[in-house]
Amino acid sequence: MAEFYSRRNLEFLLTEVFDIEGVLKLDKFKKHDLNSIRLMLDAADQLAKTHLYPSYREMDTQEPEFKNGRVHVHPKIKELMKRFGEGGWIGAQADEEFGGLNIPSMVASSANFIFGAANFSASVYPQLSTGAARLIETYGSDYLKHTFIPKLYSGAWQGTMVMTEPESGSSLAGIKTSATPIDEDRELFRIKGQKIFISAGDHDGVGNIIHLVLARIEGAPAGTKGLSLFIVPQKMTNEEDQIVMNDVNTVGMFHKMGYKGAPIVHLSFGDKDKCYGYLLGEENKGLSHMFQMMNEARIGVGLSAASIASSAYYASLEYAQERVQGQLPDEKDPDSPQVPIIEHSDVKRMLLQQRAIMEGSLSLLMNCSYFSDRATADKIEVREIFRLTLDLLTPVAKTYPSEFGILSTSNAVQIFGGAGYCKDFPAEQYFRDIRIHTLHEGTSGIHGLDLLGRKIIMGGGIAFRAFTEEVSKTIKKVKLEIIELSKYGEKLNDALFRLQNVTMRLSTMAMKEKKEVFLMDATLYLELFGIVAIGWQWLLQAIPCQIAINENRGDEFYESKIYTMRYYFEYELPKAEAIVTRLNSSDTLLIEMDKKHFM
Amino acid sequence: MAEFYSRRNLEFLLTEVFDIEGVLKLDKFKKHDLNSIRLMLDAADQLAKTHLYPSYREMDTQEPEFKNGRVHVHPKIKELMKRFGEGGWIGAQADEEFGGLNIPSMVASSANFIFGAANFSASVYPQLSTGAARLIETYGSDYLKHTFIPKLYSGAWQGTMVMTEPESGSSLAGIKTSATPIDEDRELFRIKGQKIFISAGDHDGVGNIIHLVLARIEGAPAGTKGLSLFIVPQKMTNEEDQIVMNDVNTVGMFHKMGYKGAPIVHLSFGDKDKCYGYLLGEENKGLSHMFQMMNEARIGVGLSAASIASSAYYASLEYAQERVQGQLPDEKDPDSPQVPIIEHSDVKRMLLQQRAIMEGSLSLLMNCSYFSDRATADKIEVREIFRLTLDLLTPVAKTYPSEFGILSTSNAVQIFGGAGYCKDFPAEQYFRDIRIHTLHEGTSGIHGLDLLGRKIIMGGGIAFRAFTEEVSKTIKKVKLEIIELSKYGEKLNDALFRLQNVTMRLSTMAMKEKKEVFLMDATLYLELFGIVAIGWQWLLQAIPCQIAINENRGDEFYESKIYTMRYYFEYELPKAEAIVTRLNSSDTLLIEMDKKHFM
Repeated sequence: MAEFYSRRNLEFLLTEVFDIEGVLKLDKFKKHDLNSIRLMLDAADQLAKTHLYPSYREMDTQEPEFKNGRVHVHPKIKELMKRFGEGGWIGAQADEEFGGLNIPSMVASSANFIFGAANFSASVYPQLSTGAARLIETYGSDYLKHTFIPKLYSGAWQGTMVMTEPESGSSLAGIKTSATPIDEDRELFRIKGQKIFISAGDHDGVGNIIHLVLARIEGAPAGTKGLSLFIVPQKMTNEEDQIVMNDVNTVGMFHKMGYKGAPIVHLSFGDKDKCYGYLLGEENKGLSHMFQMMNEARIGVGLSAASIASSAYYASLEYAQERVQGQLPDEKDPDSPQVPIIEHSDVKRMLLQQRAIMEGSLSLLMNCSYFSDRATADKIEVREIFRLTLDLLTPVAKTYPSEFGILSTSNAVQIFGGAGYCKDFPAEQYFRDIRIHTLHEGTSGIHGLDLLGRKIIMGGGIAFRAFTEEVSKTIKKVKLEIIELSKYGEKLNDALFRLQNVTMRLSTMAMKEKKEVFLMDATLYLELFGIVAIGWQWLLQAIPCQIAINENRGDEFYESKIYTMRYYFEYELPKAEAIVTRLNSSDTLLIEMDKKHFM
Repeated sequence: MAEFYSRRNLEFLLTEVFDIEGVLKLDKFKKHDLNSIRLMLDAADQLAKTHLYPSYREMDTQEPEFKNGRVHVHPKIKELMKRFGEGGWIGAQADEEFGGLNIPSMVASSANFIFGAANFSASVYPQLSTGAARLIETYGSDYLKHTFIPKLYSGAWQGTMVMTEPESGSSLAGIKTSATPIDEDRELFRIKGQKIFISAGDHDGVGNIIHLVLARIEGAPAGTKGLSLFIVPQKMTNEEDQIVMNDVNTVGMFHKMGYKGAPIVHLSFGDKDKCYGYLLGEENKGLSHMFQMMNEARIGVGLSAASIASSAYYASLEYAQERVQGQLPDEKDPDSPQVPIIEHSDVKRMLLQQRAIMEGSLSLLMNCSYFSDRATADKIEVREIFRLTLDLLTPVAKTYPSEFGILSTSNAVQIFGGAGYCKDFPAEQYFRDIRIHTLHEGTSGIHGLDLLGRKIIMGGGIAFRAFTEEVSKTIKKVKLEIIELSKYGEKLNDALFRLQNVTMRLSTMAMKEKKEVFLMDATLYLELFGIVAIGWQWLLQAIPCQIAINENRGDEFYESKIYTMRYYFEYELPKAEAIVTRLNSSDTLLIEMDKKHFM
């Protein structure tokens, strides 16, 4: 079996780059220690290698089927949901009172990375259940918690996130699905409407599907401020304790380019006016409640993208080591044997680019998890700043792995040559699978607007300042303590300085100009931010490696990390310059240009 | 039906940017005039709209089938081959004596662009026949010409290009397929060997398949200098005038990510030692002969990539005009209606990027065709310099459209949002289809080596100087005559200057350093060259537009071209800076890094 991720790298991030041991000392997590965490990762590794990876490609060729109004998925899903539940993975971060393991986000993310690298489609099902159950934990009554959470965490039931409608995708303001109270308590509502793009929205791998649905209560305000959140089970228990269908109907299934192991469906709620849902949280606060799940899902999307990029990297690495072709440029003897293609510098470059993107992304995502753990469990007074920095980084941690992951998996295809385009090899599946990530959980364009239009300016720029201070701290550390890295610290400092200037320029513009002008290149701003943030992650990773080398504890792993860091600073970070050049230009052609000029 | 290309743009390139009228005055082409050319393009348009476009998506879902040792393709292919033949498209550039139309390359390329935009897979079959027949025209005896060319041009038979073997892909030096003379004339040979990745290498849409095969005659030197070229028909006529199989066996068919309408097969020649082939051209000159077909095929690949990018652009443009979602950033009224997404600046940017890449690519390809026509038909004394410049630009014209086309079609997917990932819409097919182009006819890495390691330094740099003079001429023209464009002329001048400096630095290195060091970033050098060359094409296109506007002949088309040019200089050209930064660095990490550091 090919490798699909590096355990050494995961442990390196947990213990040498980010302070898992510090996190495990916090009250909330102190039942765990590094040993118990390692045993958990062993279990995740075992599940991934034995049950997830072997069915990865089969789930691509044997797509779910929509028959007689129901979706039938690969039979392995049923078994996997049980295993995810039994292993405690669905409720991994939940408190013990809900049957959870109460492990830090850093560890849960590590496990999810392993699962995603082994079998992306299959890894999505439990993550959706986790998100749904955690929302119920936060906002549900005891009755709702008791009814739904144990079944979701055990893998018996599936959780989903139900927002998009045919006419409301990127803009949720127009959501039409309605909710009518059926009694004065306003706890149970009659739900009616059409919802599309629902991942795992119907399948036969579980006994019930618990939809978390955004809908508008009759009489509620227009726009997103009139949305409420409902728990709408596919099946309900009636008064005679019989299980009955809840008028949630699967209209169809979308056939997709990739991500084929998980169904995405079109649901119709309440065709017979017999669909019931429980209000979750406060009326008209549905979108803000849903954001808890969405923010976790966004980090999850970044993690999935990085995990697919990981499997693609290892598949192409293995091929590059085995495939012989051509000779090196300075070979004088035409009869000398051909070399493994990993010896060609262009192949090295394509491998390094993949690794730089993938491990840089994973490092940023692990940093987010670290902030999340601190924001959840550290001393009250420091929580807020961790939470704000995490909020700021969320669109970046979602988008960089997704956008650059396309490039990364494309390199994997390229290394395989013509074989990479063929279905006999895994590369093309990774290239198709990863492509969804710039689309779901908010397109890259939406995240650009979120970052520049909201996160950067929130609280007078407090989160952006916290971020730049973190980066500067890293730069200062290498400048003062690790002379070998100071050159890269300076490069990062330059890039950070440019990012700060651009941010200043844009923030000033936000006050003077129309919003449209301020936001016109928000997607590029997000790309720039990502490139700088990943540069920071590479410098962060280089520190323990260089220290180990200087202390004669260096090995090939540490050396390889330094090489990959150098690659990033030589080949990737300069891309920031090009974006800064554009962002500093005053040409507003995107605004000036009228739709008639598109032909 | 959605548009899939712009006829106005094609005519603009032919008549306003490149001098088709001048070409039509050359002796070789003087039977044609602009009117007759337009009628031909009408016919191509008609064929594309009526017969190619309607079956494009069906050919993706109904892949060829390999049954009982033979490949069965979509039934439409049989009809299309006949139509391509009857329309004269397969022999369009051939002399009348071979039944050709003898039209300029500029016109043939225009027609191929239309066909590729309508149905990429279907457009490949006739192009392969064209390449094979033209090779036979150049190197064949009268007997060979008489036997094969008319059948290929009529569409009755299929031509192919047969090079790759399981162990010889990017490096053809190791080709093992053998050829044994069967008589003293050394005209007919017994062929034996395995060949893979043969496009249209077997199918039931034609009566016979004529393979042009690279093989090694017994006793020939090792390496590429021992390769000879053979015509190996799938079926032969025996002495009793019966049609018999020629022991060319289809071993299997590759299942691919895209480009599904055309089969790529694995062939085994001479399993029963009864496979015969005619030597074409001189012994041991096979690869250099094959290069005629390969060079044309490389331009053809660039053109196919641009044509897929064209259909993707128009599909996403139509969607962007129709799909309403969200409001503009400065809208104060939450109840105001949603706007078509084409009004959002990020969607405009994604459309502009597609158009800039696609029309910039098409312009460069048309420029290549223009040089080709001059090199073929102009006064003897100027032909060489056109040929050399064309040779230099071939890897660029193949690679830029292919590499940036991935980005371009990815934008089309993105504009469709979640729907772009689904098979109900065409975007995802374009994204899959285009991905082959950086792989076949030489990977991008191979073309980087070709450009930097061969084309740049050939003849003491004569072709590179001719190229820079052409670009400088364009810059000088806008500086002196079109003040509105001079700012962009300066930007291009800067980029050209950087490219020249990098080229100088690398050429000097080629004399002092190991080849490995000189060539380590050849792929990036090719990318840089492409970005500058496309910038040149945009300035070239802007000239007639700005003149028309200044003379009050401006219309929305000309204005839209100026906007797209501005987009290119604002958003795309700055990417050259990042690559120059890298190419000017002396860090040789790609060389230093050992395979043990990849983990």
